[in-house]
Amino acid sequence: MSFEFIENGSVTTPSGFLASGVTAGFKRSGAPDFAMVKSEVPAEFAGVFTSCTFAAAPVQICKKRVQESRRLQAVIINSGNANACTGKPGLEAAEKSCAIAAAALNIPADTIAVASTGRIGVQMNMELIECGVNLAVPALSADGGNRAAEAIMTTDTVPKAAAVKVSVNGKTFTIGAMTKGAGMIDPHLTTPHATMICIASTDAAISKAQLQKILQTNADASFNRITVDGDMSTNDTVLLLANGVSGVEIIPESEEEAAFAEALLALMQNLARRMVLDGEGATKFVEVRIKHARSEKDAKLAAEAVANSLLCKTAWFGNDPNWGRVVAALGYSGARLDPDKCDIYLDDIPVVKNGGDAGTPEADLLNTVKQREYTITCDFNDGDAEYWVWSSDVSYEYVKINADYHT
Amino acid sequence: MSFEFIENGSVTTPSGFLASGVTAGFKRSGAPDFAMVKSEVPAEFAGVFTSCTFAAAPVQICKKRVQESRRLQAVIINSGNANACTGKPGLEAAEKSCAIAAAALNIPADTIAVASTGRIGVQMNMELIECGVNLAVPALSADGGNRAAEAIMTTDTVPKAAAVKVSVNGKTFTIGAMTKGAGMIDPHLTTPHATMICIASTDAAISKAQLQKILQTNADASFNRITVDGDMSTNDTVLLLANGVSGVEIIPESEEEAAFAEALLALMQNLARRMVLDGEGATKFVEVRIKHARSEKDAKLAAEAVANSLLCKTAWFGNDPNWGRVVAALGYSGARLDPDKCDIYLDDIPVVKNGGDAGTPEADLLNTVKQREYTITCDFNDGDAEYWVWSSDVSYEYVKINADYHT
Repeated sequence: MSFEFIENGSVTTPSGFLASGVTAGFKRSGAPDFAMVKSEVPAEFAGVFTSCTFAAAPVQICKKRVQESRRLQAVIINSGNANACTGKPGLEAAEKSCAIAAAALNIPADTIAVASTGRIGVQMNMELIECGVNLAVPALSADGGNRAAEAIMTTDTVPKAAAVKVSVNGKTFTIGAMTKGAGMIDPHLTTPHATMICIASTDAAISKAQLQKILQTNADASFNRITVDGDMSTNDTVLLLANGVSGVEIIPESEEEAAFAEALLALMQNLARRMVLDGEGATKFVEVRIKHARSEKDAKLAAEAVANSLLCKTAWFGNDPNWGRVVAALGYSGARLDPDKCDIYLDDIPVVKNGGDAGTPEADLLNTVKQREYTITCDFNDGDAEYWVWSSDVSYEYVKINADYHT
Repeated sequence: MSFEFIENGSVTTPSGFLASGVTAGFKRSGAPDFAMVKSEVPAEFAGVFTSCTFAAAPVQICKKRVQESRRLQAVIINSGNANACTGKPGLEAAEKSCAIAAAALNIPADTIAVASTGRIGVQMNMELIECGVNLAVPALSADGGNRAAEAIMTTDTVPKAAAVKVSVNGKTFTIGAMTKGAGMIDPHLTTPHATMICIASTDAAISKAQLQKILQTNADASFNRITVDGDMSTNDTVLLLANGVSGVEIIPESEEEAAFAEALLALMQNLARRMVLDGEGATKFVEVRIKHARSEKDAKLAAEAVANSLLCKTAWFGNDPNWGRVVAALGYSGARLDPDKCDIYLDDIPVVKNGGDAGTPEADLLNTVKQREYTITCDFNDGDAEYWVWSSDVSYEYVKINADYHT
């Protein structure tokens, strides 16, 4: 099997998917703020969502679709209003949004999902939804994926879309996706979270049960491994639609299924990585990797403590090869480790040996931490388990964005 | 019983305590960086310490004293080098520091404790310790408490010392203390942590067992309730010396003991509060209070999630009455709560009612969040448990301090 990323790939790269991105008026700036993705035929689908207690109305609708609907055919996404903490009126608004789109697309409302991102606690303006639907439906096109990716942005500075073409046993299918998310990004729980939305599509034919399992596993190895600010959102939504248009059937436990899962993971990791690179005010991309821990749980605790440490994140911003803060974070993480066995590397350069200064000249360390991207490896020398997390720094710009932006 | 704060109170306000603060040369700036506190007679004592796996050498010495020494008579503290992650040489340096002070003071080394704060991973310069001791011993005086408080500062902008005079059943005794700490401050665990050092003194006569119990309980209701950046330190140390010079005996379970505990708590809360007010780059002091939660554990999870949320902290800095971020933090905290029952107040002004917008005009909310200090109360209306945490905002200055300062 093999797969390759397709240039300018997006959610409309797989066969039989249309999308559009339009300006409905949610954003004061006049930037595109309403997207629609539609499959030409009803699609199998799966979804994973925020585990926040205050799950937003659209998340509640999506969860209901996953439980109750056999197929999905369209997704509408607005940016500028999260429709979170809006109570019963918010839930009614989310349902009504689907109904408006259903009427315009002439398909059942329960085959339509809705996602929202933006300010929390503000009731939906249904006129804007109507406006968005009225503009988005005629704009649907097979090359609309990138316009849709642009319309779902909030504090993102670049749209994020990608697609992979998979070849396995002489058969070919395609997976595409778009994501948004630059803040409220944290990997702490077992379902994806971050103010992140990911809509993925594939022309492979695969069952809902397979999709759900693969999506969950892949989310744990992609979106659940990134952190910008350690804050989880009310609105995180990952949806994957499989319309079968390629004619390639993905049988459970087959080579095709393994190829599908692997390619989808590459796609999700590609997008996750770009979310961190585009993290609010981020100037650094830091991979925190724990090696030889006693258990994956210990490795995860340790990696997440370092990746979320405000002191580490500000040191990264300051190009400070400050391993003391890394050690402090490992120490309070709750991970079991023997301080005297712990080694730390900046890329391949040893910085801590047996829990103390490795003696590398500061100039060599400085060259590493001045890079845009680098890896901090903490080797516990105490077992076989590994874990990694991708993180960004905290800069003046991060503070500015979040002191000024009203979520 | 009654107690009152004493003007310019410090660790030397209780009878029989001497202190000094001198410049040994740990800080490049030439500011005072070495402090000594001495009781005229050997004192009962207790201590609580960081739970960081990488506990610094001086913390290991202090823990040993608590376990093995019957009495303590002096404490030496240096700022500028944490003596953390320094391995066996670091431990030897900490022991030797006590020995140097013991020789100069002509008392046993195991009646001397040592605390350090500053950069992690740098071996101790013993010449500086010798210099510090040689200057500090002749400078010891009964009004040296405030100079000692100055000498233990790192990124603190003001020294923090206080004393309370307690009257109970016609008897009078005094408790004094000094603290340092403005960053690496977080309340997550059951023992104090933060790069915080607190040396407290009292002229009451009280046993080690009583002191240890009261100190632990009070730490949980003071230093363990503050957060600046959510990062715990390798060096957190709280020591309390009781020399009995007042002649007032504190019998277990007596009114005197209750008075002692209550006054000590007031003193510790006073200092904890001032640590947050002096938090690195802090422009706000925010009390996060959870009411009517199902259990104290739920209330604590929720309070700490809000108090440590980077998005909340930047919103506070931006004078943004952004309850959406508070709700998001409550939602991912892991606390059990019913979103539809949750009310939130900024001081006394309702901002969320039953999980949604309470409809208070934004101008009223703005007036509250523009204050230097205010309280965010989250009422879960779902039980009887309460918890509160004191937090600060994250400002440009916080990032500047921590991108520039090499811990």
